[in-house]
Amino acid sequence: NKRGKRTATPQKKTPVRIIPLGGLHEIGKNMTVIECGNDMFIVDCGLAFPDEEMLGVDLVIPDFSYVEKNKEKLRGIVLTHGHEDHIGGLPFLLKSVNAPVYSSRLTLGLVEGKLKEHGLLGKVQLNVVQPRDTIKLGCMAVEFIHVNHSIPDALAVAIHTPAGIIVMTGDFKIDSTPIEGDIIDLARFGELGNRGVLALLMDSTNAAKPGMTMSERKVGESFSNLFQRAQDKRIIIASFASNIHRIQQIVDYAVKYKRKVAVSGRSMINVVAKATELGYLKIPEGILVEIEGINRYRPDQLVIITTGSQGEPMSALTRMAMSDHRKVTVNPNDFIIISASPIPGNEKLVNRVINELLKLGAEVIYEKMYEVHVSGHACQEELKMILGLVKPKFFIPAHGEYLHLKKNADLAVAMGVDRKNILITEIGKVIELDGVDMKVIGTVPAGRVMVDGLGVGDVGSIVLRDRKHLAEDGLIIVVTAIDGQTGEIVAGPDVVSRGFVYVREAEDMMAQTRKIAKKAVETCMANNTHEWGNIKNKIKDDVGDYLWQVTKRTPMILPVIQEI
Amino acid sequence: NKRGKRTATPQKKTPVRIIPLGGLHEIGKNMTVIECGNDMFIVDCGLAFPDEEMLGVDLVIPDFSYVEKNKEKLRGIVLTHGHEDHIGGLPFLLKSVNAPVYSSRLTLGLVEGKLKEHGLLGKVQLNVVQPRDTIKLGCMAVEFIHVNHSIPDALAVAIHTPAGIIVMTGDFKIDSTPIEGDIIDLARFGELGNRGVLALLMDSTNAAKPGMTMSERKVGESFSNLFQRAQDKRIIIASFASNIHRIQQIVDYAVKYKRKVAVSGRSMINVVAKATELGYLKIPEGILVEIEGINRYRPDQLVIITTGSQGEPMSALTRMAMSDHRKVTVNPNDFIIISASPIPGNEKLVNRVINELLKLGAEVIYEKMYEVHVSGHACQEELKMILGLVKPKFFIPAHGEYLHLKKNADLAVAMGVDRKNILITEIGKVIELDGVDMKVIGTVPAGRVMVDGLGVGDVGSIVLRDRKHLAEDGLIIVVTAIDGQTGEIVAGPDVVSRGFVYVREAEDMMAQTRKIAKKAVETCMANNTHEWGNIKNKIKDDVGDYLWQVTKRTPMILPVIQEI
Ligand SMILES: [Zn+2]
Ligand SMILES: [Zn+2]
Ligand SMILES: [Zn+2]
Ligand SMILES: [Zn+2]
Repeated sequence: NKRGKRTATPQKKTPVRIIPLGGLHEIGKNMTVIECGNDMFIVDCGLAFPDEEMLGVDLVIPDFSYVEKNKEKLRGIVLTHGHEDHIGGLPFLLKSVNAPVYSSRLTLGLVEGKLKEHGLLGKVQLNVVQPRDTIKLGCMAVEFIHVNHSIPDALAVAIHTPAGIIVMTGDFKIDSTPIEGDIIDLARFGELGNRGVLALLMDSTNAAKPGMTMSERKVGESFSNLFQRAQDKRIIIASFASNIHRIQQIVDYAVKYKRKVAVSGRSMINVVAKATELGYLKIPEGILVEIEGINRYRPDQLVIITTGSQGEPMSALTRMAMSDHRKVTVNPNDFIIISASPIPGNEKLVNRVINELLKLGAEVIYEKMYEVHVSGHACQEELKMILGLVKPKFFIPAHGEYLHLKKNADLAVAMGVDRKNILITEIGKVIELDGVDMKVIGTVPAGRVMVDGLGVGDVGSIVLRDRKHLAEDGLIIVVTAIDGQTGEIVAGPDVVSRGFVYVREAEDMMAQTRKIAKKAVETCMANNTHEWGNIKNKIKDDVGDYLWQVTKRTPMILPVIQEI
Repeated sequence: NKRGKRTATPQKKTPVRIIPLGGLHEIGKNMTVIECGNDMFIVDCGLAFPDEEMLGVDLVIPDFSYVEKNKEKLRGIVLTHGHEDHIGGLPFLLKSVNAPVYSSRLTLGLVEGKLKEHGLLGKVQLNVVQPRDTIKLGCMAVEFIHVNHSIPDALAVAIHTPAGIIVMTGDFKIDSTPIEGDIIDLARFGELGNRGVLALLMDSTNAAKPGMTMSERKVGESFSNLFQRAQDKRIIIASFASNIHRIQQIVDYAVKYKRKVAVSGRSMINVVAKATELGYLKIPEGILVEIEGINRYRPDQLVIITTGSQGEPMSALTRMAMSDHRKVTVNPNDFIIISASPIPGNEKLVNRVINELLKLGAEVIYEKMYEVHVSGHACQEELKMILGLVKPKFFIPAHGEYLHLKKNADLAVAMGVDRKNILITEIGKVIELDGVDMKVIGTVPAGRVMVDGLGVGDVGSIVLRDRKHLAEDGLIIVVTAIDGQTGEIVAGPDVVSRGFVYVREAEDMMAQTRKIAKKAVETCMANNTHEWGNIKNKIKDDVGDYLWQVTKRTPMILPVIQEI
């Protein structure tokens, strides 16, 4: 009896804790803390782009105060790949903690550029790893596994802990015919699965999409057709700068069709330079030409690779569309390919760029018309394949909004994972695994820290609320100087407005506003109300009521009283 | 010879002028002026919803100053159908001009509601017309033609003018199996085509989409499946209020599956009431229940029809998703169908609602998963059919952004219209047709007038620029009282900020700002600069430089000087 039950009642082991600090219920700022005993490390430290409500905010990073508070336990930072949502928050973290960084050569190459910008180069130890390498981080070991994605050199990790093996896929897809390098290391996922995997954290981005994601090579086939169709026109292709395989394909077809390649847009120029330097991008001698020199070539001798596939207002393609690009003047001799699909929220921006390019007479090919883009993320059949190979005991869907996490959880159930062993969780939750159970045992601070200019975290909800208020109805300032002794008005009230109405056409309303403000102050004085706060409130109320009545708007009203 | 050339050299006739005032290079605020001799009428007067840049703006209407200036020529206003982008601007126009309005019964029913809101009811003559009716408007006659669309009672118009027949399709699709009434009157389009049509203005909304738009009945088939799948759950369906055929189908399936129907959301309640009153919506006795009384029924006895299919923040469905709806508490016993596709720009809002509904445990069906929505606009095959029937001499693509107009023009070429007889034009252009030629002969004022609260047109580019500035970086106010005689500072400078930084955590910076402002004033005084404008500029520059240096932000700086 005793012997027979051995496997049925497994022993609890030294627990490992998983603390997601970003990437759940959101797309972006992926970051996960792994802890065991006195050791801690981080997988990824990304950024997110601000929502529309985050007025004026440049970017968003995770709240990593928990890591800062426990920095003596931090043994390392592991990065899965070089996308902004996985590395963009790193420089901000490295300003307050220091730990060796481990990742692939390309990822670290891109990190280097960021560290330089932030004046951190040379202060951080960057360690290049290869797929199948294993590094020790305290009582844990991290093994790197090759995966396919829309940037080269992407890695999954298998974390070997006292409690068992935890597999984190990072972003991935299964591409049987990748442009460079091998298909994702399915064999290793399978081996780990056979040894027994305690928990799997898997990319949910495309979990709502059935089928398989198409190979990057599919885009190449489209390019091949389109290069022929372009005939004697100049070709302009907009794409994500980080999609180096896409750029490689463009270069390859340019060579084939005897065209030179010029590059436009800051991030495109940077990535092309970095990827070429590191050998990820292979551009034959004499193919690359300066954007300044494109006029020396005929249209049919040129391909321009550019940023702006999302219609970003300051990007090179948008500037071309608005006839505002210093080197490229779009004309009916241009054949333009937008090799990306609009990220939700960017559809209108992209449409605007397409409209303007068409107005300039260019031919424009975009995703809905032609297969000029494939996703970098696994769809349902791929996710099921990984679930089938890894056969995890516990499953935590990662990277996605709730609808994606939920779908991924449903897939896991369909693949035989016990529904009660699946956890859809939130950032800041401390998940403990002891080899037997998975439990949420607590919460640490987590959330979004807004970066605006040099300020990190100094824009919070009050500032945003004020910005929103100002944005919607503008502002009325009422300035009054009052004699501190007599309580009499010495100057003003003067009324200044911004973003409210066109003042020249609203002189009567402004005069009336002044009158009402004056009356408000005088009423207070007559009632012996000398408390500035009370007078200000009276001004706010009376002016606010009046303006609402005549305009049905609620500008921010700012009374300023100066005591003389 | 003379006789033979008769048809080859057609005579010029009394010219007719077409002046689009909205709906070109945009989706929304459709409005077209038709003029002949001393007579003028309008086809449609719609509104548009503001872009993201139009901060705080409620809605946008066409600039109809040209109509106001020529109101003595205005013989009538013709409305094609009851969508906001065709009738929403009407009450604003009717405040300055008066003319009889002609349209179908449902359209005028919806117009009535608007006129009531604007206190215009009874002041405007509303004339119900039937398909195939013809009305005289000065020297022109307008004939109404039945079309299919996503609202009942939609009409195309054939304008009989001295120069020839002009056909305007309005919004349309070809639905061979409409929910109510007939298929679009293709026979009449064909008859007109055989008589000879001078010009066609045609809906371009779906001109980039190949194939045929599916019948509204297709949605019914999906509903039938989904009602079965919902089993014992409560069904909640979000849809456009104006899609009365959709609502009719929901009611019909509710009856079939023995469920009561409750209605939520102001516009849904209004439209259901109006459409029932006018007989467009047929709800059997005892089916409709008050939303207040839904708790008296089991989940499987209920269907709730609601607004919010676009994730609009204040809509009923969004409030349900945010657990903020007074009558409906979403729970795992809810089966929710979003019967619409997100309008470009609304994807994130819709996604957010879906995420929140899923978190509450509800099952959520949306467009990408299931055919729960069809468009109201004709796709390429339908557009080609109309082109083939009408065989116009001249073609003007209408209703769409440039990319749609361009595609529609290409379709017309494919259908045999001469490329030089096609005009992609802009609002404000005066297009003249004399039976022989089509020419742009001039321009009239046209554009977008922003409505914010009660203000119509008082928010312009300067106000928007200020709102944008305030939204992005907030505001710093510097208030100083100066002795007008000595030039000495009597009080201040006081610094007030909003939307810039969280002031409690930036006290040093604020103190420094005060110091710099004080120095600026003192420097001016020392240099005998007493011109307030110059002192203000100095404060702006110095404070701005300092804040840029420490924050890399550019708040709006508003210096106020009071002379004592
Ligand atoms: Zn990625
Ligand atoms: Zn990612
Ligand atoms: Zn419509
Ligand atoms: Zn319309």
